[in-house]
Amino acid sequence: MIRTLIKETSQKIGEQVTVEGRIASRRDHGSIVFFDLRDRTGILQVVLQTALAGDLKEEDIILIEGMVKARPAKMENAEIETGKVELEASKVELISKSQDLPFALKDTPELSLPVLLDYRPLTLRAEQIKAIFKVEEGVIDEFRKTLKSLDFFEFQAPAIVPTATEGGSEIFKINYYESSAFLAQSPQFYKQIMMGAFERVFTVAKAYRAEPSVTTRHLSEYVTLDGEMGFINSWTDLMDTCETIIKNIFKRVELACESELKLLDAVIPKIEKDIPRIKMREAQQIILERTGRDNTKEPDLTPEDEKEICQWAKETHNSEAVFITHYPTKKRPFYTMPDPENPEYTLSFDILYRGLEITTGGQRINDYSQLVENVKKWGNRPEDFEFYLQAFKYGMPEEGGFAFGAERIVKQILGLENLREASAFPRDMSRIDGRIATNNE
Amino acid sequence: MIRTLIKETSQKIGEQVTVEGRIASRRDHGSIVFFDLRDRTGILQVVLQTALAGDLKEEDIILIEGMVKARPAKMENAEIETGKVELEASKVELISKSQDLPFALKDTPELSLPVLLDYRPLTLRAEQIKAIFKVEEGVIDEFRKTLKSLDFFEFQAPAIVPTATEGGSEIFKINYYESSAFLAQSPQFYKQIMMGAFERVFTVAKAYRAEPSVTTRHLSEYVTLDGEMGFINSWTDLMDTCETIIKNIFKRVELACESELKLLDAVIPKIEKDIPRIKMREAQQIILERTGRDNTKEPDLTPEDEKEICQWAKETHNSEAVFITHYPTKKRPFYTMPDPENPEYTLSFDILYRGLEITTGGQRINDYSQLVENVKKWGNRPEDFEFYLQAFKYGMPEEGGFAFGAERIVKQILGLENLREASAFPRDMSRIDGRIATNNE
Repeated sequence: MIRTLIKETSQKIGEQVTVEGRIASRRDHGSIVFFDLRDRTGILQVVLQTALAGDLKEEDIILIEGMVKARPAKMENAEIETGKVELEASKVELISKSQDLPFALKDTPELSLPVLLDYRPLTLRAEQIKAIFKVEEGVIDEFRKTLKSLDFFEFQAPAIVPTATEGGSEIFKINYYESSAFLAQSPQFYKQIMMGAFERVFTVAKAYRAEPSVTTRHLSEYVTLDGEMGFINSWTDLMDTCETIIKNIFKRVELACESELKLLDAVIPKIEKDIPRIKMREAQQIILERTGRDNTKEPDLTPEDEKEICQWAKETHNSEAVFITHYPTKKRPFYTMPDPENPEYTLSFDILYRGLEITTGGQRINDYSQLVENVKKWGNRPEDFEFYLQAFKYGMPEEGGFAFGAERIVKQILGLENLREASAFPRDMSRIDGRIATNNE
Repeated sequence: MIRTLIKETSQKIGEQVTVEGRIASRRDHGSIVFFDLRDRTGILQVVLQTALAGDLKEEDIILIEGMVKARPAKMENAEIETGKVELEASKVELISKSQDLPFALKDTPELSLPVLLDYRPLTLRAEQIKAIFKVEEGVIDEFRKTLKSLDFFEFQAPAIVPTATEGGSEIFKINYYESSAFLAQSPQFYKQIMMGAFERVFTVAKAYRAEPSVTTRHLSEYVTLDGEMGFINSWTDLMDTCETIIKNIFKRVELACESELKLLDAVIPKIEKDIPRIKMREAQQIILERTGRDNTKEPDLTPEDEKEICQWAKETHNSEAVFITHYPTKKRPFYTMPDPENPEYTLSFDILYRGLEITTGGQRINDYSQLVENVKKWGNRPEDFEFYLQAFKYGMPEEGGFAFGAERIVKQILGLENLREASAFPRDMSRIDGRIATNNE
């Protein structure tokens, strides 16, 4: 049997073909039945005699033999690629029977989030849901492609780590043989070590955060797109690279995911010029002037501040993204490079896009003694970081890096309400696949 | 400052340039000093006055300004790309000072494995070690490229899972908020679920095995290259796809990693025709005839058997790889499709390459009732697999898949002695970065 893919049928008018797929919908009209048949390449209208259609229904998987015919002009469907043809079925074979669905697949976008996720193996089949992950695939692939074109080397970062890298208590502990270990909060140390060998490196890795609250902006397991580059001339090289990445991602999704964007009613932002770059303190001042909200003494932007400053960037710079720079030294990890002009602030940045942080980055301390000092200043013991520090002991160039949250980029591009929608299998404090019964020992 | 990359210098004879990199070696000859300078693109010979060279030494990071000159013909070095030029330094600037090295970097290949790994941040800089990970990058990239060309969709599999997927006790437990969870032993369930939506899927993921023994063939965390395809005509489609992947990987590494293979004295196997496919029972019979070792009643091949049957394949089929098929039903997971001609065996296969299993795959049970029955038969409760089973409840085509161990392919291509050498940051029962002190609570 040679299977014809559905997208190929529009070129096969007058030919006998065999197609396989799922029934997306069934419409009965007297002695005639219409199926919309779905395979990975598209949707095809199939016409059958009632007897041939039997009790077949939505999500049943079938094989159909038949003749491809041109539809009458007034019956054409401009919405789909195969809208000018239909298949007149002569033989139908059941491959796999579906049980009754809990809801019609086309109603998936109307489901509440818990139901959407309880039925994930089913809801992933809905066109609007598949579209989200097609966009995710494009985002990640373009990150990879862009960095390869800039001569970055791709490596595999480990997720089992011996210590809490970024500090804080939001870390998962593992029973590790007779001992214990942790799940990486980021590939930070490993990308810096690899950078010491390869100069420019990146990794598509997992990061884990034992975030104890259920916000719409956090996942317990997420995909992090991490890069690190040595021999920088200035820390602004890092922002330039991030700007190239994000612009390429927008371009790629716009070109490669046209139908997905249309389906989800999403519009890629045009960034006509450069993404504006402002200091955190300046941003707080602007917010004070715009809203009267005085957060100018706060060490970070609040979620409301992030939305407001994006609004400002859009209005004044026609950009839906903005770099916020110079976060306070106290609020950043021990390895962040202080600004020589004012060491209370760091050579660090975030990118906010449509009101949400999607990227964080900055220059790192590359001098061994300064780094050891900072480990202590942050309340840690250098001997616990011996492996990491080794990289600096034997010489390190001026360097820095960045990390993009893959799901966050997808969420913001598509305007999804909750970050969980941008993860095929989201994990949080109340869910791993199904909902967690507490104390499920 | 415009940095000239070392590989560009051979095109810049007579020009003034600025290069940056690490000192790979220093040779003093009277009032003249020679450095080999290393950056990500190559090695360059630098000539300096002793005064300019100061006390600079191996692994120091420097910036050098100077004039690119052609070497005298008899001083040319055909071994390196820049062997026809050298840099006459006029200015040297220290970027970062290295402490004294515990060993010369060029001696890295002679180190014992524990020392190699204790000093990983340093040893990763050795040319022979970098070469291993250049090959790994090529292997993974070619897996991705091949499957994309076959219309497979790439997704991100989760590593935090609620149950032990493959059975067995070799699973890591996580403290998950008020409850507990596990680290995935494979992305199996998730690739099958995604296949239900996208027909053909793959993922580059992590797999975790709490392997309690320290063999040369196991890692606690490894990179798994997983694919799953629906609407197969026969389970042999899966082997055909694997054969395409492995042949493409060999071709890619041969072309893209020529200098790395040379450096490591490795030769890519030519597979001139098809990879032979034999049943496990036949293999045991062949081994009995060749060695007198009677393992014909055993449910699996022993490591010695795997080596012997590869030797057989090489001698009789001129192939360094071989498919072993039809493993016993009892030894495979509950979802493996039994052979309709003899249900005591399965439609499953491994690829052995140079004596080691690098791939496993097979057809899956796609009928919901049969799968539920098998969950029970294997001693599990269907309610614990409800999420996974949902995919089958609502129709699944005939399907199957495969998984390649990335580090194992690299190990076998390069003839490394221990799988740990093929992982940048190997984890096992006695090591996470550094060696584990037992009971390090």
